[in-house]
Amino acid sequence: MRLTNFFLPVLKENPAEAQIVSHRLMLRAGMIRQNSAGIYSWLPLGLRVLRKIEAIVREEMDRAGAVELLMPTLQSADLWKESGRYDGYGKEMLRIVDRHDRDMLYGPTNEEMVTDIFRRDVRSYKDLPMNLYHIQWKFRDEIRPRFGIMRGREFLMKDAYSFDVDEASARKSYYRMFIAYLRTFNRLGLKAIPMAADTGPIGGDLSHEFIILAETGESEVFCHSDLVDMDVPGDDIDYQSDLMPLVSKRTDMYAATDEMHDAAAFEAQVPEDKRLSARGIEVGHIFYFGTKYSEAMNAVVAGPDGKPAPVHGGSYGIGVSRLLGGIIEASHDENGIIWPASVAPYDVGLINLKSGDEATDAACADIYAKLQSAGVDVLYDDRNERAGAKFSTMDLIGLPWQLVVGPRGLKNGVVELKNRATGEKVEVSTQEALTRLGA
Amino acid sequence: MRLTNFFLPVLKENPAEAQIVSHRLMLRAGMIRQNSAGIYSWLPLGLRVLRKIEAIVREEMDRAGAVELLMPTLQSADLWKESGRYDGYGKEMLRIVDRHDRDMLYGPTNEEMVTDIFRRDVRSYKDLPMNLYHIQWKFRDEIRPRFGIMRGREFLMKDAYSFDVDEASARKSYYRMFIAYLRTFNRLGLKAIPMAADTGPIGGDLSHEFIILAETGESEVFCHSDLVDMDVPGDDIDYQSDLMPLVSKRTDMYAATDEMHDAAAFEAQVPEDKRLSARGIEVGHIFYFGTKYSEAMNAVVAGPDGKPAPVHGGSYGIGVSRLLGGIIEASHDENGIIWPASVAPYDVGLINLKSGDEATDAACADIYAKLQSAGVDVLYDDRNERAGAKFSTMDLIGLPWQLVVGPRGLKNGVVELKNRATGEKVEVSTQEALTRLGA
Repeated sequence: MRLTNFFLPVLKENPAEAQIVSHRLMLRAGMIRQNSAGIYSWLPLGLRVLRKIEAIVREEMDRAGAVELLMPTLQSADLWKESGRYDGYGKEMLRIVDRHDRDMLYGPTNEEMVTDIFRRDVRSYKDLPMNLYHIQWKFRDEIRPRFGIMRGREFLMKDAYSFDVDEASARKSYYRMFIAYLRTFNRLGLKAIPMAADTGPIGGDLSHEFIILAETGESEVFCHSDLVDMDVPGDDIDYQSDLMPLVSKRTDMYAATDEMHDAAAFEAQVPEDKRLSARGIEVGHIFYFGTKYSEAMNAVVAGPDGKPAPVHGGSYGIGVSRLLGGIIEASHDENGIIWPASVAPYDVGLINLKSGDEATDAACADIYAKLQSAGVDVLYDDRNERAGAKFSTMDLIGLPWQLVVGPRGLKNGVVELKNRATGEKVEVSTQEALTRLGA
Repeated sequence: MRLTNFFLPVLKENPAEAQIVSHRLMLRAGMIRQNSAGIYSWLPLGLRVLRKIEAIVREEMDRAGAVELLMPTLQSADLWKESGRYDGYGKEMLRIVDRHDRDMLYGPTNEEMVTDIFRRDVRSYKDLPMNLYHIQWKFRDEIRPRFGIMRGREFLMKDAYSFDVDEASARKSYYRMFIAYLRTFNRLGLKAIPMAADTGPIGGDLSHEFIILAETGESEVFCHSDLVDMDVPGDDIDYQSDLMPLVSKRTDMYAATDEMHDAAAFEAQVPEDKRLSARGIEVGHIFYFGTKYSEAMNAVVAGPDGKPAPVHGGSYGIGVSRLLGGIIEASHDENGIIWPASVAPYDVGLINLKSGDEATDAACADIYAKLQSAGVDVLYDDRNERAGAKFSTMDLIGLPWQLVVGPRGLKNGVVELKNRATGEKVEVSTQEALTRLGA
């Protein structure tokens, strides 16, 4: 993409309304704009990152055997009355009345709706286990939206729902999601630690939050420090195998959020030099809730004995839009964002130091074409701007590589390749630069 | 995908509530389920088609130089009060009050919001022309939702918005979208005819609807029959060139929807044997509305003379979810859907005639793996069902190719390859079948 054809409204000043670094950087880098309190537009650069995160989440859900569908944003209140959650959910639920005076709501989560879809068409244990997920906009009417998209009102969530014939099978479904989450966050460049969690309004008796560590985290967390860098299962993971040992390896170690923390247990179970207490950001949450919804909503299947029994369920959420903030909180410096390669909006930023200079324009056009035809995503700063502005824009938006092309270097047959994360710069031939970038 | 791991709840009976064939077939093929009046879930098979259509729409928008962003579903009423449309829009606008008693609405379209985004960050004519689009769920509270997703309440729309410094430039932006629409619908396997249209509540003085012909169409249309099979610009179209001749080639011929029809002009301009009157379905609508929104909302840029002037705008919609219905209305037979290859949920349906038979299972598994590794999307019916049910399911869901593998054929070294559209069946070796399918 040529920057002159793009829409990248970067800000030089720090916006006054942004209290945390991710919010500040997303505004400055022209990734988002607020439309109403806690409601944002994703500008082109932000949208590209959002879609890359979404794609990784999707791939790992599919790999774990979940099947994607898409439920609507608006739901009938009737389903929530059936489950008993309509009155209890409180003001975070955005309630709507349509033109025919029917009670609707903007879905904050989908346990009821997916249970309804399930019960209408699934009849037999033979169709189980089943895990249905979607990636859809949700709304929670937060009383005080803040921190940009980290605590917004309209947000993109991946939510998966498992259906099993009994608890033993449901726990296996839970383990599959547990492992899929480890893999997902790892691919996003994050070190996420599963922590025992309260089940809250979803209900149930087994739940983990996935927490990434960041100084600006919303809550205090406590864990065994070996959890931070523990190996994550690879691409060859077999989701049909017994995953309990992989899960236990983590859950056997102490890890708890503030609300679940037990100081005595922490000290008893963790050697002093391994006790980590830090700030954390929740990026995922998984629940096993048994027959809570299936009993209330009569979602039954015929078991092997022919008798109908309520299915055992779990739900599994990842805050897709929130992850952008989490990644930035975990990966930035004083000059801007440092994207992990897997989610970077473009792989390379190509900087033309003298737009309008015939030789430089031609060299850049050639490099741009070669990178594109090799499938390397490149953002080409072809604007008629001074070099300083181009450098600071590129640092701000945080693409993994910067390729700097100017008339002086070209005379000597070299271009400059800069690694955004390390700051390392090398002068190499154009061909060598292309080779290093995979073209 | 193995059918035993998928969620494909096909129905044998015609659902009573479905009045038109696309609605009937989408329900029967397990593509959608209604959650509330005019609000649907997209089951896995339906979602795959929706995503393929969306991808084609996106590619053609990008090719034409439009830039993708994503605006939220909920909007503040303030913007609509500013443009003057809040009171006039009527009951189709779903109005919402949040917990702080602020007036919100579920966006039915985004002229106001995109104008607000534009005016906040764009200052100069040098940044123009600009065309921003998004693909997002919209809501229109239809008084009587019907025909499945063809006239639903929550629907997926691609809407683009162009910004230009003057009318001459804005008309060029309009022509780019006009051509992009021709290409988009053509790639979707549709023959769409642009017709002069009323501008309605969007306003403006230049507008075309893109109409596909189908017996079940919602309105009567009249046009010169040469328009139906007119060539569409190819991949080599240069969007920087003068597109007016390509546009005029079509707009010079008579084509009008019922509300714009002028019987006398039709007879005067079109020879009798070329007069086509038929039923049509609107799948796209483009508008040039000049400074209607920019004046009301003070969206100005500095012109070449340094003076601020309101930008000239247009908006361009495609009903992405509605297109599924349109494609099915245009392409089906008595046994089910016939997907154009470009949007088929899978390329091939692999039918195992005797699941459980060791040799047949092994042959199918081998074919399945080979197709997958060649990048061919294959849905493998590995269920323990009788052959008749498998054949009718495959015909119903309408994949372009069926590959039928049974023990008898395997003994003779052959499998059967069926073309869904023509019904033609050939017996060929497994290798030959794989070759024909691109593996």
